Amino acid sequence: MNVAPEFNERVVLAARPDGLPRESDFKLETVPLPQLAAGEVLVRGIWLSVDPYVRGLIAGVYPHLKRIEIGETLRGGVVGEVLQSRDPAFQLGDIVEGRLGWQRYGILPGSGLRRLDPALAPVSTALGVLGMPGMTAYFGLLDIGEPQAGQTVVVSAAAGAVGSAAGQIARIHGCRVVGIAGGPAKARHVVDDLGFDACIDYKAEPDLLAALRRHCPDRINIYFDNVGGMTWDAATAWMALDGRVVICGSIAEYNASGAPVGPRRLKEFETWRMRMQGFRVGDYMPRYPEARAAMVPWIAEGRLRYCESVSEGLESAPSAFIGLLQGRNLGKQLVRLAPDAHSAVG
Amino acid sequence: MNVAPEFNERVVLAARPDGLPRESDFKLETVPLPQLAAGEVLVRGIWLSVDPYVRGLIAGVYPHLKRIEIGETLRGGVVGEVLQSRDPAFQLGDIVEGRLGWQRYGILPGSGLRRLDPALAPVSTALGVLGMPGMTAYFGLLDIGEPQAGQTVVVSAAAGAVGSAAGQIARIHGCRVVGIAGGPAKARHVVDDLGFDACIDYKAEPDLLAALRRHCPDRINIYFDNVGGMTWDAATAWMALDGRVVICGSIAEYNASGAPVGPRRLKEFETWRMRMQGFRVGDYMPRYPEARAAMVPWIAEGRLRYCESVSEGLESAPSAFIGLLQGRNLGKQLVRLAPDAHSAVG
Repeated sequence: MNVAPEFNERVVLAARPDGLPRESDFKLETVPLPQLAAGEVLVRGIWLSVDPYVRGLIAGVYPHLKRIEIGETLRGGVVGEVLQSRDPAFQLGDIVEGRLGWQRYGILPGSGLRRLDPALAPVSTALGVLGMPGMTAYFGLLDIGEPQAGQTVVVSAAAGAVGSAAGQIARIHGCRVVGIAGGPAKARHVVDDLGFDACIDYKAEPDLLAALRRHCPDRINIYFDNVGGMTWDAATAWMALDGRVVICGSIAEYNASGAPVGPRRLKEFETWRMRMQGFRVGDYMPRYPEARAAMVPWIAEGRLRYCESVSEGLESAPSAFIGLLQGRNLGKQLVRLAPDAHSAVG
Repeated sequence: MNVAPEFNERVVLAARPDGLPRESDFKLETVPLPQLAAGEVLVRGIWLSVDPYVRGLIAGVYPHLKRIEIGETLRGGVVGEVLQSRDPAFQLGDIVEGRLGWQRYGILPGSGLRRLDPALAPVSTALGVLGMPGMTAYFGLLDIGEPQAGQTVVVSAAAGAVGSAAGQIARIHGCRVVGIAGGPAKARHVVDDLGFDACIDYKAEPDLLAALRRHCPDRINIYFDNVGGMTWDAATAWMALDGRVVICGSIAEYNASGAPVGPRRLKEFETWRMRMQGFRVGDYMPRYPEARAAMVPWIAEGRLRYCESVSEGLESAPSAFIGLLQGRNLGKQLVRLAPDAHSAVG
């Protein structure tokens, strides 16, 4: 017999931030947990993912995704354990991943959940290197960037969940990879632990373009952009012929109130025959199994490493999210909702 | 017997302009005309093309094209008549097109010339709708823009040589086409003579974005950009999902001394899955015959119209060029070097 909890805790949006969110923009609520309907599954969260794109959801910038309204639970992926199931495809104790949001317990139809195999990799990776950030890195780099062996790839936010994977995948494809990250600890981590050829600490560089010229004597074939802003300005001034600019995220611009301004670089796009493209990782969902099949062996062989920053408890989710927007994390930012019996890291 | 002239006249760069060129940046020179070497052809120019990209050549922005140096003849395409030939493939009186530059007579190896068929179309079109501007419109729109019937295409500098062709080709492919041009006469011409669905006179619009929203209720699928600057700013704020921005030219930015600044639009590229791409028409040279084979019947059927602005005499080339950079031309800007016995317009 298993007893479902009567109450749930969740983090809702209390006020719409203008600029960098503050903790007071969020509120922890206790609410009754509803009964399961037919086909539904009750999951106890173990790992919650906080992601930069949630800042965009709060601002309502995505035409294909509903804005998060005041009073609404923040959205995010969760890895958890099945507590009750009214979908015959899921059993008590199954470890699953789904978009359950910033709450302790979540209820979803079974169709919204994916069962994980804890033997394959630590289950937390379903939110990181084998989850949305990893898929973003894989398809953004390979499908939009189209790397060729010997080319130079520059990755911003190189110590983050997406950037760290994108750079390593580029190296696996024979590219020379230069990261950009903030602070000496991150820059060292990117080179020493992740194996990038070099990493520029932009906080220590008064002239980022000069640093890129130094580190990329043959210019940049692919700029994998996770930040936008002045980092984009510098990288796009130093692209090689047929250079590709992969617009993955613009964390430097999410908190801007107006339209962030910089050089348009249109002459460069014309004369250097450049291409810039945004993409949505969700479009690649049918190909996620292909990406995971490639990446699991890379992880096992130690060629694709990942790092996780863990904050403790649901109540820490807002500060983890704010820290993420400030670049305080190393690798994937997770919130531990409950002990993980399935991962070494738990 | 034919007697070759002893002297040539040419326009050379006298000073490197900063900003909009002035007439004093150019100099008309009289120089001896050399004898023909084996394989060479002497051509008397009839039509000279002045083009916006020459501003980029003067500034040296093209990595694949040599900068125009002080004292060097300005570059440009010419249609002319063969006066002497030491290449057996060319005969006295042949009408040819080649990159002979801003001069009265030009000498090139036969391999640098293309013989024209005056029966096919007025020979001046080899510099316009069937020449480099037409090829730019054709491949930029079809290869980079990838139009689909029913989509909305916005074309800036719509009354210019490239824009007028790009918009009409988009209409031939079933698109709804909105032009942007400067002044009521141009805007009327674009709709009444070229058949665009609408044309915005940007000089009469305090808010170009509002005008685009009004004229493009379903947003913009393809923005064919010939100007850059604030026109780019407005159009890229109103792109549809999967919108394509074709960077053909940036006439608003060629004369800028620093790096022109505007909104980066990176959030829009990310969330609307946009693509922006520069291209070089020269890459498509092997496919020019394919484009001309498609366009000649369109011209004959009256579906692809063109307009020429003609200035008289080699000495008028600098002012014609400056006027082009200021948008004073309608359609293709030509300089008449000698009477054209082969075209109605001559």
